Amino acid sequence: MAQSFRGRKRQALDPVRIDLNGVFASTIGAATGIHPEELSSLRPRLATAVETLQAERKQGLHPFLDLPRERGPLGDVQALAEQIREEADSFVVLGIGGSARGARALASALAHEVTGGRRSPKLIVADNIDPASFAHLLDELDLSRTVFNVVSKSGETSETMAQFLIVRERLLRELGAMDYVKHIIVTTEADGGSLRQIVNDEGFPSTSFPGGVSGRFSALSSVHLLPVALLGIDVEQILDGAAAMDERCRNPDPEKNPAALLAGVRYLLDVLHGVPTAVLMPYCDRLVPLADWWCQLWAESLGKRVERDGGRLSIGQTPVRAIGAADQHSQMQLYLDGPADKVVTFVRVADAGVEVEIPRSYPDLEDVAYLGGHELGQLLDMEQRAMELALNKRGRPTIVIEVPRLTPHTVGQLVYLMEVETALTATLFGIDPFNQPAVEEGKRLTFGLAGKPGYEAEREEIERWLAAKLPERVV
Amino acid sequence: MAQSFRGRKRQALDPVRIDLNGVFASTIGAATGIHPEELSSLRPRLATAVETLQAERKQGLHPFLDLPRERGPLGDVQALAEQIREEADSFVVLGIGGSARGARALASALAHEVTGGRRSPKLIVADNIDPASFAHLLDELDLSRTVFNVVSKSGETSETMAQFLIVRERLLRELGAMDYVKHIIVTTEADGGSLRQIVNDEGFPSTSFPGGVSGRFSALSSVHLLPVALLGIDVEQILDGAAAMDERCRNPDPEKNPAALLAGVRYLLDVLHGVPTAVLMPYCDRLVPLADWWCQLWAESLGKRVERDGGRLSIGQTPVRAIGAADQHSQMQLYLDGPADKVVTFVRVADAGVEVEIPRSYPDLEDVAYLGGHELGQLLDMEQRAMELALNKRGRPTIVIEVPRLTPHTVGQLVYLMEVETALTATLFGIDPFNQPAVEEGKRLTFGLAGKPGYEAEREEIERWLAAKLPERVV
Repeated sequence: MAQSFRGRKRQALDPVRIDLNGVFASTIGAATGIHPEELSSLRPRLATAVETLQAERKQGLHPFLDLPRERGPLGDVQALAEQIREEADSFVVLGIGGSARGARALASALAHEVTGGRRSPKLIVADNIDPASFAHLLDELDLSRTVFNVVSKSGETSETMAQFLIVRERLLRELGAMDYVKHIIVTTEADGGSLRQIVNDEGFPSTSFPGGVSGRFSALSSVHLLPVALLGIDVEQILDGAAAMDERCRNPDPEKNPAALLAGVRYLLDVLHGVPTAVLMPYCDRLVPLADWWCQLWAESLGKRVERDGGRLSIGQTPVRAIGAADQHSQMQLYLDGPADKVVTFVRVADAGVEVEIPRSYPDLEDVAYLGGHELGQLLDMEQRAMELALNKRGRPTIVIEVPRLTPHTVGQLVYLMEVETALTATLFGIDPFNQPAVEEGKRLTFGLAGKPGYEAEREEIERWLAAKLPERVV
Repeated sequence: MAQSFRGRKRQALDPVRIDLNGVFASTIGAATGIHPEELSSLRPRLATAVETLQAERKQGLHPFLDLPRERGPLGDVQALAEQIREEADSFVVLGIGGSARGARALASALAHEVTGGRRSPKLIVADNIDPASFAHLLDELDLSRTVFNVVSKSGETSETMAQFLIVRERLLRELGAMDYVKHIIVTTEADGGSLRQIVNDEGFPSTSFPGGVSGRFSALSSVHLLPVALLGIDVEQILDGAAAMDERCRNPDPEKNPAALLAGVRYLLDVLHGVPTAVLMPYCDRLVPLADWWCQLWAESLGKRVERDGGRLSIGQTPVRAIGAADQHSQMQLYLDGPADKVVTFVRVADAGVEVEIPRSYPDLEDVAYLGGHELGQLLDMEQRAMELALNKRGRPTIVIEVPRLTPHTVGQLVYLMEVETALTATLFGIDPFNQPAVEEGKRLTFGLAGKPGYEAEREEIERWLAAKLPERVV
């Protein structure tokens, strides 16, 4: 047994570590591997990126960076969570994208940590408008014991507003005009458009979407901490973990700054080595929603078109979420033999917190006997290491994020690390990570089709385009 | 309202249609768009690919193509399903990759179709070895009312065998040596290695993995139809739909053959237009597991390294699964503004089978009022069309798969279409879609770490590699 497997329990110290051995030319060869000089050349830019981010932060430009230290709202969050725990069996987040994924990621990673105590409400994140799923959800709920949390930063997100309208009417009908208001908590910006006006008119309880924080960078705000707190998860520990990572990520020496190193490495792989696809592959089921959250963070923050040298340039890495070990039997063939355009970032959780021993049932059957006596978590670990080496041997870069154990503290570290890494990577590419200009056009076209006044031109455009489809190109 | 939205119900005829308007230069411009001459040049190769596949099929080379017409095993499948429905509250598939995803895809797409009648067992597909999830699953089950289906084509898959060993011992302990055998059904090849030997020794009920069918092409075999049948889903209709698609996909005229056209289009986009990333984006929650199944089919079948012109060439497109409308708020910014390296294939379900009207609650609030009176499914449709046009306007190729309604017959069509398309695309690239040679090395390295006799060299190699990791590259 290799030492790293014997030592699983002993490794359960706290800090999240990043192993970058698998990106260097000395490990994977010169074609896709980073040469140490490439990283040292980038060092001044990385240091400047860190310093600029921190300087802008002091000017109040990046409030997401200070969320871990803002403990003021926590009292309200805990009190509200306490009240909901008394009154509700189900808590349904109505939100989409950055209004939904943070809560789901944190809850999935940490719900197992809660032991003892009272039963918590069931958390449901309804982030789509498939009519079949949504109707099914509403039919299953006991509305008198359900609280809905309508989350929309702008207060105008069409999917969320549609959900809100449907839920509000259903509550009115089933619970009556005296009671329905208590079953909806609205989370929106202080000046959150129509939704804020509805709150003012009807008196729904409400909380604020933090000002100046874009949805995908809001995972550590009260927007997502409320649903997590009501599961009984220690949200202060999440923020403590994020604050600890903040200390490391403000270090102007890139070699001691995990966010800067990760940003630099992923940037160099893309720009110098033709590796534009970033796979995040946790070997842990509970981290799959965190990977989904990261896919949004990475895609929406870095997928940008910029004017440069008189022309237009499209920037962006494609994030892909994979799951170990399951996707070894699905995607790994492609990662190993397909184009060398991917960096696979494994997430290893050293201590699963559960031991499941594989029994030695068939000592004489060689295709089974070797499994006996290992723990299931060891087998998972061994498979991850085997994949890592197999990739490296074929010149495919790998990164390993080592998480000692899934706790609020380590998950807080992970979230903060990924957010800062994203912001620093954007700086290297010279783009703004906090906007999403391209999605506006799709919204306008939807408004046009839906008949929103002022969007008649869009309606005409999309109807003309639909009518121009050639039937002979439909088979 | 555009006609396509008014006409939703009327469209509910049966055949699955493919709209390729969004891949042509006339729609999206000459940079990424396909010129009609490119497709006509490819026509002879496409026709040959279809003819070769069908000729090889007649020689018995591709038994997966004949699964829809093999009705013989259906009687046994139905009888076994009937028996399990009597005896079990839960049916747990222990399998990974191609042994798991077909059943999950079919069940998710079709479970809603079952109405009335008896309660069916709960279907659980346990396709990972995360010890926390697996321990939790076993703790939640009433083992006396659970049947486990151990599925491994080779009979030697390490993850599945580990699950089997753990489950077998638990059953032995809790139910005793008289009864445990009845709670495990083994599905493996007729000569399925150690697992077949265990079946013979202990007398577990067993079914056969069809010979010559690789896991990811086995969705229409009894391996996956058994779990689907016991939910009460009409598996004959699935096969009928697949057989109907077979008729269309054997047509040697590529312009009338949906699988050939799709294969040709995705091939040309990759080879001539720099589009190696294939996004599958159903606007339907129930099709998400089908997209996961397709991601394996596409990645593992087409991700290959070949010897060509004296050198080695890596081939493969990266499949990405997205969900509409949720991923509009996550990935669409990248698809629109990022590198033009993706073709987005939307899946539209014309009739969701459920109507959820958005009430006209706030006629005077313009950011909400426009939603009132639409159905939720219409809003979803409008958003899909808006995204499609927004992508096309930026020169990004799109394909639309139109599904009239989710029924066993249409889902059978979809599965068969995707399988044949994959096989034809492999022919265009000159590769074998049915093997997965690269994953063998990872398996050998795992054997080494786990101490399997005969893999001492691999063990030494991986231990040496682990020991050589430089601590200064861990931050």
